[in-house]
Amino acid sequence: MPIEEVEETAEAIETMEIRGAATIAGAAAAALESQAAASEATDPEAFEAELRAAARTLYQTRPTAVSLPNALRFVLQDLEGATVEELRETVLTRTRKFRADLEHAQERLGRIGANRLRDGDVIMTHCHSTDALATVEHAVDAGKDIEAIVKETRPRNQGHITAQRLRELGVPVTLIVDSAAHRYLNDVDHVLVGADSIAADGSVINKIGTSGLAVNARDRGTPIVVAAQTIKLHPGTLTGHTVEIEMRAESEVISKADREKIGEITVKNPAFDVTPPRHVDAIITERGQYPPESIVSLMRELYGDVDEEPWAEPN
Amino acid sequence: MPIEEVEETAEAIETMEIRGAATIAGAAAAALESQAAASEATDPEAFEAELRAAARTLYQTRPTAVSLPNALRFVLQDLEGATVEELRETVLTRTRKFRADLEHAQERLGRIGANRLRDGDVIMTHCHSTDALATVEHAVDAGKDIEAIVKETRPRNQGHITAQRLRELGVPVTLIVDSAAHRYLNDVDHVLVGADSIAADGSVINKIGTSGLAVNARDRGTPIVVAAQTIKLHPGTLTGHTVEIEMRAESEVISKADREKIGEITVKNPAFDVTPPRHVDAIITERGQYPPESIVSLMRELYGDVDEEPWAEPN
Amino acid sequence: MPIEEVEETAEAIETMEIRGAATIAGAAAAALESQAAASEATDPEAFEAELRAAARTLYQTRPTAVSLPNALRFVLQDLEGATVEELRETVLTRTRKFRADLEHAQERLGRIGANRLRDGDVIMTHCHSTDALATVEHAVDAGKDIEAIVKETRPRNQGHITAQRLRELGVPVTLIVDSAAHRYLNDVDHVLVGADSIAADGSVINKIGTSGLAVNARDRGTPIVVAAQTIKLHPGTLTGHTVEIEMRAESEVISKADREKIGEITVKNPAFDVTPPRHVDAIITERGQYPPESIVSLMRELYGDVDEEPWAEPN
Amino acid sequence: MPIEEVEETAEAIETMEIRGAATIAGAAAAALESQAAASEATDPEAFEAELRAAARTLYQTRPTAVSLPNALRFVLQDLEGATVEELRETVLTRTRKFRADLEHAQERLGRIGANRLRDGDVIMTHCHSTDALATVEHAVDAGKDIEAIVKETRPRNQGHITAQRLRELGVPVTLIVDSAAHRYLNDVDHVLVGADSIAADGSVINKIGTSGLAVNARDRGTPIVVAAQTIKLHPGTLTGHTVEIEMRAESEVISKADREKIGEITVKNPAFDVTPPRHVDAIITERGQYPPESIVSLMRELYGDVDEEPWAEPN
Amino acid sequence: MPIEEVEETAEAIETMEIRGAATIAGAAAAALESQAAASEATDPEAFEAELRAAARTLYQTRPTAVSLPNALRFVLQDLEGATVEELRETVLTRTRKFRADLEHAQERLGRIGANRLRDGDVIMTHCHSTDALATVEHAVDAGKDIEAIVKETRPRNQGHITAQRLRELGVPVTLIVDSAAHRYLNDVDHVLVGADSIAADGSVINKIGTSGLAVNARDRGTPIVVAAQTIKLHPGTLTGHTVEIEMRAESEVISKADREKIGEITVKNPAFDVTPPRHVDAIITERGQYPPESIVSLMRELYGDVDEEPWAEPN
Amino acid sequence: MPIEEVEETAEAIETMEIRGAATIAGAAAAALESQAAASEATDPEAFEAELRAAARTLYQTRPTAVSLPNALRFVLQDLEGATVEELRETVLTRTRKFRADLEHAQERLGRIGANRLRDGDVIMTHCHSTDALATVEHAVDAGKDIEAIVKETRPRNQGHITAQRLRELGVPVTLIVDSAAHRYLNDVDHVLVGADSIAADGSVINKIGTSGLAVNARDRGTPIVVAAQTIKLHPGTLTGHTVEIEMRAESEVISKADREKIGEITVKNPAFDVTPPRHVDAIITERGQYPPESIVSLMRELYGDVDEEPWAEPN
Repeated sequence: MPIEEVEETAEAIETMEIRGAATIAGAAAAALESQAAASEATDPEAFEAELRAAARTLYQTRPTAVSLPNALRFVLQDLEGATVEELRETVLTRTRKFRADLEHAQERLGRIGANRLRDGDVIMTHCHSTDALATVEHAVDAGKDIEAIVKETRPRNQGHITAQRLRELGVPVTLIVDSAAHRYLNDVDHVLVGADSIAADGSVINKIGTSGLAVNARDRGTPIVVAAQTIKLHPGTLTGHTVEIEMRAESEVISKADREKIGEITVKNPAFDVTPPRHVDAIITERGQYPPESIVSLMRELYGDVDEEPWAEPN
Repeated sequence: MPIEEVEETAEAIETMEIRGAATIAGAAAAALESQAAASEATDPEAFEAELRAAARTLYQTRPTAVSLPNALRFVLQDLEGATVEELRETVLTRTRKFRADLEHAQERLGRIGANRLRDGDVIMTHCHSTDALATVEHAVDAGKDIEAIVKETRPRNQGHITAQRLRELGVPVTLIVDSAAHRYLNDVDHVLVGADSIAADGSVINKIGTSGLAVNARDRGTPIVVAAQTIKLHPGTLTGHTVEIEMRAESEVISKADREKIGEITVKNPAFDVTPPRHVDAIITERGQYPPESIVSLMRELYGDVDEEPWAEPN
Repeated sequence: MPIEEVEETAEAIETMEIRGAATIAGAAAAALESQAAASEATDPEAFEAELRAAARTLYQTRPTAVSLPNALRFVLQDLEGATVEELRETVLTRTRKFRADLEHAQERLGRIGANRLRDGDVIMTHCHSTDALATVEHAVDAGKDIEAIVKETRPRNQGHITAQRLRELGVPVTLIVDSAAHRYLNDVDHVLVGADSIAADGSVINKIGTSGLAVNARDRGTPIVVAAQTIKLHPGTLTGHTVEIEMRAESEVISKADREKIGEITVKNPAFDVTPPRHVDAIITERGQYPPESIVSLMRELYGDVDEEPWAEPN
Repeated sequence: MPIEEVEETAEAIETMEIRGAATIAGAAAAALESQAAASEATDPEAFEAELRAAARTLYQTRPTAVSLPNALRFVLQDLEGATVEELRETVLTRTRKFRADLEHAQERLGRIGANRLRDGDVIMTHCHSTDALATVEHAVDAGKDIEAIVKETRPRNQGHITAQRLRELGVPVTLIVDSAAHRYLNDVDHVLVGADSIAADGSVINKIGTSGLAVNARDRGTPIVVAAQTIKLHPGTLTGHTVEIEMRAESEVISKADREKIGEITVKNPAFDVTPPRHVDAIITERGQYPPESIVSLMRELYGDVDEEPWAEPN
Repeated sequence: MPIEEVEETAEAIETMEIRGAATIAGAAAAALESQAAASEATDPEAFEAELRAAARTLYQTRPTAVSLPNALRFVLQDLEGATVEELRETVLTRTRKFRADLEHAQERLGRIGANRLRDGDVIMTHCHSTDALATVEHAVDAGKDIEAIVKETRPRNQGHITAQRLRELGVPVTLIVDSAAHRYLNDVDHVLVGADSIAADGSVINKIGTSGLAVNARDRGTPIVVAAQTIKLHPGTLTGHTVEIEMRAESEVISKADREKIGEITVKNPAFDVTPPRHVDAIITERGQYPPESIVSLMRELYGDVDEEPWAEPN
Repeated sequence: MPIEEVEETAEAIETMEIRGAATIAGAAAAALESQAAASEATDPEAFEAELRAAARTLYQTRPTAVSLPNALRFVLQDLEGATVEELRETVLTRTRKFRADLEHAQERLGRIGANRLRDGDVIMTHCHSTDALATVEHAVDAGKDIEAIVKETRPRNQGHITAQRLRELGVPVTLIVDSAAHRYLNDVDHVLVGADSIAADGSVINKIGTSGLAVNARDRGTPIVVAAQTIKLHPGTLTGHTVEIEMRAESEVISKADREKIGEITVKNPAFDVTPPRHVDAIITERGQYPPESIVSLMRELYGDVDEEPWAEPN
């Protein structure tokens, strides 16, 4: 039985009281840390079983999230130890390292990404990504003049948030509709986007419109850079699983009134699309920048190999 | 001095009482027809001078429109005749032919375009084009099942009109945001769009977003077809002139309230973009289908060669 | 009522006693020539009606052939004349010109195509085309050393015929399976193929496998040249009609025995495919070489414009 | 002197009594296992020398195979141990792991590959690959409807075998000639092929026709997936060696009778070609899916680094 | 026997006293004009024979030039006339038109090309072309700010001349080595080059390096524009003739001293290369701008069809 | 305080007495070796501090070089040891390994690269690279006939050195200007170049002109191979840093006299450019060949991870 704190964390994740990729991952690691600290198990097998049970409780809250199982994988993979104390020490070391890394991840990523930006560069953004924004922030902090062409990003107009944050950083902003991207790409030095998750084959799953933007960027000779912390790497894709694309409410696309005027139609509102690695120049993480084709190596380093669901009960 | 009817037509065009490419062209031809019929000139030079004056009056109302000067060019180019009567006959023949052709142009275009569509085909549309729609209409009339994926076409959502018209034709419609186009292009047999105008170098000027859509269609191996009557051919581009792209009001892109929330930004709202001929498979006109690279031959046949502004006073 | 000779020619075409694109076209022109010569019509309208009736008789034998209506279009388009004698003279002049041109077309095409080949060049062929072969023949006659890599061209292995003809010309031949083309394209200076027909949009309809070969040639930087007499131009495509692709017997693909062993499968055996103009460098005709995108100009010159089926009864 | 069982295995491989990449690799590992178990060496050096001798005996039977040296590399690389018993234990552990992994490799690969396939997908196959087939089998077992377009794969028509196996799985099959692939690629969701071997630079060596098919798939926007167990990775290519392409008998391409009819020609019949990584989307192995550009990491993990031929006598 | 003036012109062309494409063409037309004016022929056949003889005399001086036969073709093609006077009038009309057009061609071309350039544009040049320069000159005259990145154009550094002329126009110039072009293309709005000649298949023959520059421009999304008067169109290529590329002295590439130091090497110094039409956006002539794929139509209009060498003696 | 030998080495590097990537790296490793051998530190912390100080002294001489910090990273990363003696042993082992590897690196690289070259191959070179040359040398030593097309490589004509070295190896050489590369690429089997440095994202920084050559090679279907020892890998780029491109003297591009003749111009003379990994087929190192996209794995193996500047004082 997981301790109460684990149950509470699980519930908070399930009810979306705890939300956001990094926050969820941090909370899950903290819950495992508490479980390990509080364990009264008297033999290693029991201790490990407790940890696995805690992990399962957490995992089942949102099995399709990416950062949650990554936290669990990071802590539990290849756990070895002859005594309960050794195991406990290992778990505590890992949870602390995971949480410490997580705390600084966006800032580190920002500093790394900022190095790619030169003084005077113009970026184009799609959707809203705090990782991408961190990159710009550090470039601005380093004294570089950066300008931004911001796509509004229908249907939810997250470009407006990006525009506002960029203005707060003092970055001059030009807002355009999504369809105007191709026309302005020749004025742009980097397309800079975030990611919802990144697959083992190097594909980037991100806000609908990213894949078409990337194709247009290739046509215009403009590099495209993805900013994403390593908690976005999706080890489940190593086993060939494709990331399921959420279909969102049609009311985001068209108002009820407009729709009734048109008549009987289908509205399709996929939240994300998939950009193959050949259309991306680099993925910026807090652990450095990588060509998308080699991100799988980092994924395996951090979260273990193909067979491991370390919270599963051994047969 | 042009006759009163010419003046009235000119004013109606200028005040946009007469609007729409075909309607303007037809009205201009009718005005020249009236001028020729009413002329009391007693020698050929005077007759021609009257016609040129009438043409100038009409032309100056909207010199950046495309169909208006095309009507004038069609009627006045290479006018020859030994007597007033011969000249009058020539003008009347031409204006009647122009107007008759114009009357049937969209229907002829529709029949031609429909031949490219096969039973069961899925098209993707951008913006709203009655020429493109005529193509679908004739395909449906010919008993073909056609489905449509309709891009909403921000900022003005003309896709809603297209969706409504297609529903009236009984065509199943799926509405998507513009950014979702790349994701659905693999399910599409033809991208089918209209044109604002077509340049001598084969470029297609059309609603913002067309050029990026065409690049995406090439990436997915989907052919892209442009439906445009010959009054859209832009002979002014033969002399290297580029078509000026209208920048529209920023209020189309973002509401005042949303904008104030963001802070000081620039909003750019170009109405059109330019698609090079290598990204277009065919241009469907009422005179047949052409590769975009050879549309310049048709342009010169209909509207004369590079030097001619047939309404200019001879030196 | 067409004269007996027209009826006989029509029957011979229908029973495929007369076959081959050039032979059919020549026979049709000869039949119209006989009809014009024998006509006892006493007024122009009757004469023209006789000619149209003869043309319809011929046309209906194989309405999907390309060369047959081209012969009829060439002779009958825009027929004008004040008297029967004038009309007869026009028809006879045209039929003689058409037949004379036809007689020398392959040789002229061969001489033109040979000019593109340089001493020492290696060509790759697909299927069997006497037009393509004429090109090689004239190059060899001009003293150039030419080598050939010949694709066998499943399912009917017409490559064997090409190989044999090339050997008769003294050309060294390497025979490969179709799948080996990509591997050998780097050793090749020109891909040289014929055409079944050529569409107004510049597409080349040719033996199945041509479109994939052309894509591979672009990948390898190898130019692709199509040799086709102008009787292969398909003016029906000007009105958007796509060329219907014949589906041939599955027994060409797999023997009955092999198929029974496999179980219940579908076999698809399309005879042709469609290569878009952007994957073709030049079309060699007996009237010169053209970029595929401008072949529509030649098509209209020879066979008239979009509206004309000159054998149709006027309304 | 290797023990008798090693000699017998070597002979069975040489005489092709033992054949097939996986069977050979398993037999070689078993032979090393027996050698280690039976060794009477009294010091580590002698034990290792015996193992190396056994490996050389096995290796020399078919030095150009890929799976055979991979088995030897896996077992012998970086062998360390202070005593004969430690070394023996290490060898036995590795041979057992290698054989156990091998036994489940195709099934694991199949499950992984199946995850990429969605219900309703259409695949296109080239040649016959049991790895590719395992992918389909697991997708079907998971209740997905899969359809297949099967290229016959001249000259040996292995597509017929693929078609038969797919029918046994209940998969609807359409058989086409190789040249028809481009025409049907727009109807296809995945090109799915196997591999003869995979090189360090990410190139895929597979049945002749694969490279051209991959280029065509890119033209049509269709992803291409390679299914290959890790015994197909070719560590010899890490040192720049290119895989030698077998040239097979010309009688596979053309019958003696047909050939004599044609005259003196060369027939080239390469068994394989090389597809560069940029034309492949993913390589499915039993250890997960990888972008082809990062397969070299897995290769080095499993089979050691560039310098090691672990069966070579130390200088 | 041609008159003395024809002989003198011929000699002046042969000795390169008269040189430069436009100057040669003008002189040849003037010589035909003199011949026609001076002719004492008493019947049309004799008059035409005189003209053909004069043309042959001129043609043979530099049969590989392009503008010379174009002048002759323009004047002599399809010459018809019932009397010597009619023929003389036709010839004089044509020579005067040709020369008048020629006189204004560069200025007209310049005005047309200038319309493509916008205020603030940056161009990249290769080699030295007065036609390209005329384009810039007219843009500057129209008040547009133009900047230029000038490739030095090894081996003869004609870029230095271009740089000097551009400076005389007040255009800011950045000089780079040819190899630096790719690096700077993202800063460039148009690549602007001239042409040595233009082929029927739309290929542009221009200074060595043009074809590679055009490929790089496509990679960077930069349009490439060719400025060339219509005397550069090469009707001989209509019959498939490829333009022979001059191989120039190796001393242009390497000094004798440097070469001796290296040892025995081959130096290849081709003067020109061939850019296919798919890598060119537009050809600017004094008669308007054209997609390269449709330049063949203009070529045939001006210089006649494939069979005509109008100076040849009729059989 | 570093020992005197370290100071001397540092000065020799600073004054460029020691120069060349490999020589500098070797000298830096030797200096650390001496420091470790000579250290009289009595506790591990002091020993490590001495080593770090020595490394800083060396590093500061040329912080933008690539091979120098690589030597320091290789020796100092993750240094662990309980005693001074253990630490000393570790350092000495690493410096010896680094220097031994370095000594044989070019030869090993040459042997690896030579395996890609086949008998009869033609290579094209750009600039002068001893790594690329080593590849050819080993191919020649292995009895392969290799020919070379050598680009002169403006502005400094390093192609002349390459030509001379190739002649010394007996390789037939054709010298061309840089602009002629596209024309000759169809005759070439491999483009073979060196590298100044290689970035974490797989980009190759090499002599100006490489990126444009690589784009042209893709257009022609010619593979491009980079030969570079692992000391050229640039771990600083892992943190997003872009490699600063040196701008060299304009006198290399144009003589003072020529320049004064032209007038006031800017001359830009960048020494290098950046080729993205998608335009490179393989990077040949002394540790094997890699796709450029996975070179980051090798970089991290050899020189440690993103955070480490192992010579920095710990906080």
